[in-house]
Amino acid sequence: MIAVLAGGVGAARFLQGLVRVVDPADITVIVNTGDDTNLHGLHISPDLDTVTYTLAGASNSETGWGLAGESFRAMSALGRYGGATWFNLGDLDLGTHLFRTGQLRAGATLSEVTAAITAAWGIELRILPMSDDPVRTTVELSTGEVVEFQEYFVRLRHEVEIASIELRGIETARPAPGVLEALEEAEAIVLAPSNPVVSIGPILAVPGVRGVLERRRSAVVAISPIVAGEALKGPAARMLRELGHEQSALGVARLLSPVIGGFVLDEADADLAPGVESLGLSVRVEDTIMRDEVVTERLARAALGIAGTPSLSGGR
Amino acid sequence: MIAVLAGGVGAARFLQGLVRVVDPADITVIVNTGDDTNLHGLHISPDLDTVTYTLAGASNSETGWGLAGESFRAMSALGRYGGATWFNLGDLDLGTHLFRTGQLRAGATLSEVTAAITAAWGIELRILPMSDDPVRTTVELSTGEVVEFQEYFVRLRHEVEIASIELRGIETARPAPGVLEALEEAEAIVLAPSNPVVSIGPILAVPGVRGVLERRRSAVVAISPIVAGEALKGPAARMLRELGHEQSALGVARLLSPVIGGFVLDEADADLAPGVESLGLSVRVEDTIMRDEVVTERLARAALGIAGTPSLSGGR
Repeated sequence: MIAVLAGGVGAARFLQGLVRVVDPADITVIVNTGDDTNLHGLHISPDLDTVTYTLAGASNSETGWGLAGESFRAMSALGRYGGATWFNLGDLDLGTHLFRTGQLRAGATLSEVTAAITAAWGIELRILPMSDDPVRTTVELSTGEVVEFQEYFVRLRHEVEIASIELRGIETARPAPGVLEALEEAEAIVLAPSNPVVSIGPILAVPGVRGVLERRRSAVVAISPIVAGEALKGPAARMLRELGHEQSALGVARLLSPVIGGFVLDEADADLAPGVESLGLSVRVEDTIMRDEVVTERLARAALGIAGTPSLSGGR
Repeated sequence: MIAVLAGGVGAARFLQGLVRVVDPADITVIVNTGDDTNLHGLHISPDLDTVTYTLAGASNSETGWGLAGESFRAMSALGRYGGATWFNLGDLDLGTHLFRTGQLRAGATLSEVTAAITAAWGIELRILPMSDDPVRTTVELSTGEVVEFQEYFVRLRHEVEIASIELRGIETARPAPGVLEALEEAEAIVLAPSNPVVSIGPILAVPGVRGVLERRRSAVVAISPIVAGEALKGPAARMLRELGHEQSALGVARLLSPVIGGFVLDEADADLAPGVESLGLSVRVEDTIMRDEVVTERLARAALGIAGTPSLSGGR
């Protein structure tokens, strides 16, 4: 069994490669829910949906978010009233949010709703929210203003300087059912190439998670989301810098080093390999730009290989 | 100034005639919100929306509910998950519910949201919810099961026998700002041809409303929603019977007689006029089947005429 800690787009792409290497039924994905938000009364779980839609082959490759073939009639009607449309909810996507919100209000847990949604999409992997309890990543801007993560990420297009991150509710959040068990039992635990601060960070911060990974760090491998000092998508690079970390793959490795035993670097960062090794980590240099399934599958094999599961890594 | 107590479709149709007789700026519509419900986390106000969409010329004349040119992509996506789709929410219509819910959650009152929505549609009448406080009409079925009104009306297609109606929250509901003032100041108060039990009834039951009408009953006129013993639409007729009232226009007149001075009967019920007069009411017999604007305008004039506002009733 393989466990993956996942944010949104980068993780989803990686999982598309992983399912070519490992039986999907043997994969448990633990997804960040610190990005969750409530908009117009609806519970939105962006990372869960990105992972689900991508694995279902239904994601919109043009926009990088949402569903393919989407329409935005509800949003245009909302805009007519002057409602907030900065978080664009497609009509088909709304079906997911309506279902999730209705089920949660009726007493279901986020885990239960997620299981129902992923089953409806025919997804064979087990996708778990990191917690059924609400955790809300908030961002303090350098101006002192505090905003919810989605406001920073979408409304402000992550173009503003930040001062700090807070994970509201994290102290009392319990790991969702199955999370700790999956981490304990997994042959390998992969930290997907997701933002280490606001995607992987919240999952590690759920009480109990970090401890398992520290104990099992030889089985844990991370893939750098930073290539040549920049993130392929999103604000990971500038967030690292603004929060006082090194804006590089080495900075990511350093940040994650207490919980990982292996690290996959992009070929562009081969010169950083000695620095990563000096942190006591096994290093692998690979093409991490997941432009097609062949590259992505090779990356998945590399990650599993370094995590000590050569049987699954195709003998490389 | 004219005040109208309104339910959904019948009231909306009547108002289309009234605005041909009276300057819309001189009309205040007080709308039933006992039918309001929460679905999938969204606050739905069916009667407010029906009145708004109809007056905006945007209602769907084929279905009798919702917006013209509507699509149902969100609902089809919801159905994929096994979500409840018995209350069909169109994509454009969802824009209204998203806006309303978002504003309410941000602290706006239902009156404030309603003003914003009606302004966006360019509606010149003043449309007020009967109350900003939640009132929920619940229906006890003859089986003993208790359901929300929309479940009875839509999910069960009002095809089941009822035992009683309860207006939850009515004791502590305050009239929305402007409601009592409009009723005090109106030259005429018209009870639109709406269900007397579950549309007009909740408005009358808001503390303070009935008292004003009792005092001003000579200025109050009702239009029968029952023609030849049947409702043109909806369960008004069978509800009257099942709740122990007479299933006829005379039964409606009797039910409303404490708060009205005049009553408009359909031509098909001309034989009931003496019975209505014996209740101490002025009676007018008219064509009440609002099949076109000419008929509807004539009906509006008749109602105003009987309420003692001949200046507005075209001298009839």
